Amino acid sequence: MSGPATTLGILGGGQLARMLALAAHPLGLRTVVLEPKANCPASAMAEQITADYEDPAALDELAARCGVVTYEFENVPVPAVERLVATRPVHPPAEALRVSSDRRVEKETLNLLGIPTAPFRAVDDRAGLEAAVAELGLPALLKTRRLGYDGKGQWMIRDGADIDAVPARGGLILEGFVPFERELSVVAVRGADGSFATYPLAENTHRQGVLLASRAPATISAEHQALAEDYARKLAEHLQYVGVFAIELFDTGETLLANEMAPRVHNSGHWTIEGAETSQFENHVRAVAGLPLGSTAARGPTLMRNCLSTMPAPAEIAAIPGAHLHDYVKEARPGRKVGHVTLTAPDEATLEQRAALLARVL
Amino acid sequence: MSGPATTLGILGGGQLARMLALAAHPLGLRTVVLEPKANCPASAMAEQITADYEDPAALDELAARCGVVTYEFENVPVPAVERLVATRPVHPPAEALRVSSDRRVEKETLNLLGIPTAPFRAVDDRAGLEAAVAELGLPALLKTRRLGYDGKGQWMIRDGADIDAVPARGGLILEGFVPFERELSVVAVRGADGSFATYPLAENTHRQGVLLASRAPATISAEHQALAEDYARKLAEHLQYVGVFAIELFDTGETLLANEMAPRVHNSGHWTIEGAETSQFENHVRAVAGLPLGSTAARGPTLMRNCLSTMPAPAEIAAIPGAHLHDYVKEARPGRKVGHVTLTAPDEATLEQRAALLARVL
Repeated sequence: MSGPATTLGILGGGQLARMLALAAHPLGLRTVVLEPKANCPASAMAEQITADYEDPAALDELAARCGVVTYEFENVPVPAVERLVATRPVHPPAEALRVSSDRRVEKETLNLLGIPTAPFRAVDDRAGLEAAVAELGLPALLKTRRLGYDGKGQWMIRDGADIDAVPARGGLILEGFVPFERELSVVAVRGADGSFATYPLAENTHRQGVLLASRAPATISAEHQALAEDYARKLAEHLQYVGVFAIELFDTGETLLANEMAPRVHNSGHWTIEGAETSQFENHVRAVAGLPLGSTAARGPTLMRNCLSTMPAPAEIAAIPGAHLHDYVKEARPGRKVGHVTLTAPDEATLEQRAALLARVL
Repeated sequence: MSGPATTLGILGGGQLARMLALAAHPLGLRTVVLEPKANCPASAMAEQITADYEDPAALDELAARCGVVTYEFENVPVPAVERLVATRPVHPPAEALRVSSDRRVEKETLNLLGIPTAPFRAVDDRAGLEAAVAELGLPALLKTRRLGYDGKGQWMIRDGADIDAVPARGGLILEGFVPFERELSVVAVRGADGSFATYPLAENTHRQGVLLASRAPATISAEHQALAEDYARKLAEHLQYVGVFAIELFDTGETLLANEMAPRVHNSGHWTIEGAETSQFENHVRAVAGLPLGSTAARGPTLMRNCLSTMPAPAEIAAIPGAHLHDYVKEARPGRKVGHVTLTAPDEATLEQRAALLARVL
């Protein structure tokens, strides 16, 4: 019962790989993670190849041990994927990495598909930055095209003085300011057979650019739920995507604007472990393993709250009715996502009561 | 984040240990199993010490690596538990093993607590067997006092001729025949702080002495649910139990008779993974780790069906709405429990439809 046919390879061994591995085991699948840091969060429930992502021998070993390979982060080096693709199916497709790893390409792709975003301009030098500011107005947000996450690699430009303070080099984009009421996200999954499903939208709260909490299903009009599903479906079809992905959305009241897409299981979908018929982790595993998808329907109202910096005492969480602890077993570090807690409840009022109890602990 | 304080030891590395380990990880606990067979079902998500249960060095290593020790089967050798208890808390208590590993002591204990069972007599030789038959009448069931499970070590005596065909030696009991309408079970949990909870009862179907399916929550009167809870509470208090246990029950229509108790997570409680607020596995881990218990309320109607001998094709199970696959990754063998499938549904009628789909596959 081991060997490639029943083994899933994962590039990256963090908490997303950890939760993927936990979801893979009941399906009879083992997992092997390729991860440079020893004793990574996934290593307690997955086999680990400890090596750099671009190590050719390690990539070949991963391919030899696994029937299919996936990844838990979008900045996978392209040569690594190319090497794997030569011998094994890799899902999601490399094109999804290419699109999502560059904010400019990402937004251009979204717009091409008729999915609206905030207005943006590529910035390659000081003159370009000034031209972009002139076109989009202020305030505006300057972002690196690559490798930004959790609010890193972003600079708010409020006035002319800020222009002197921010970098003005190649590899940036300027985003026009869009007033929005709240941030939402849609988590979707596409199967190897082209089947497609979306989870109910989540409403997300951030703190200093880092996701703090997701409330799902979000209170939302049927029109906006359908709109988000339409965005997700168009993107999935365009990319011939296989697996779970997320699109972060700004709700302007009138419409939904796409902010960015993540070609992987997503923090704003962690609520699905207890809150949906089939978790995003299980559905990602099902999709990449070529199994039929499971229902994405919600089982009730949920609140997912990230544990940042340090974990609370398990006993304090376990004492809260409907609280489900997820400790990633990561070292404490300021601002780091080290775990999450999902609250379930039979109804919204009870969820609010439980959220109040959780707020006292976190 | 490793070391004894955050590590749970388990004697036995089968599917129950596997599901305990899967439940322990999100709580931030690692698991170490002591199991003689290499590559046991739990080994993919737990560390394994491969040794005999009575190997002193292995037991000392388990104690050294774990903060608390539990077990997944009731026939744990007493010297092993005694050796562990000298240095580490072991839950459930050894007294629960002593009681449950001997059908005579078990029934005497249950009766002492006012929990009714089928009438029984100890049998130590041919004369004793004949006397017991004379007292209890026929048909009757002859059982080994120790080491019987899944219908093994049992002989039905229908008439006088059968008496010559069955063993008549020491270490047996004869159980009088009790006509019953159906078999139920109550899974209960008691915390280290004395808190206590029961899951809704399951209705169980057997095939050749082996559990085939559990339907939960069972359709049952409030009186009988309360009666079962009363039995479980009395037993838990008497044993000063910590952890999950189950009592198998015969529903005679008029009342509930206890058949036997299992001092561990129980096959008839597997439905709780998807069907209850907190699974029996998580609640067992919470109890032995000294955490507050989670809610045992059902989330909806469920049907748990064991996969015996071989596993079905994962794709066939995944295609059934509400089906949740649990592959134990065990070698196929006639009659062996190699996995289970739990069906969830929003209502009973839908559950029946899904059960019909599952029946075509299993």
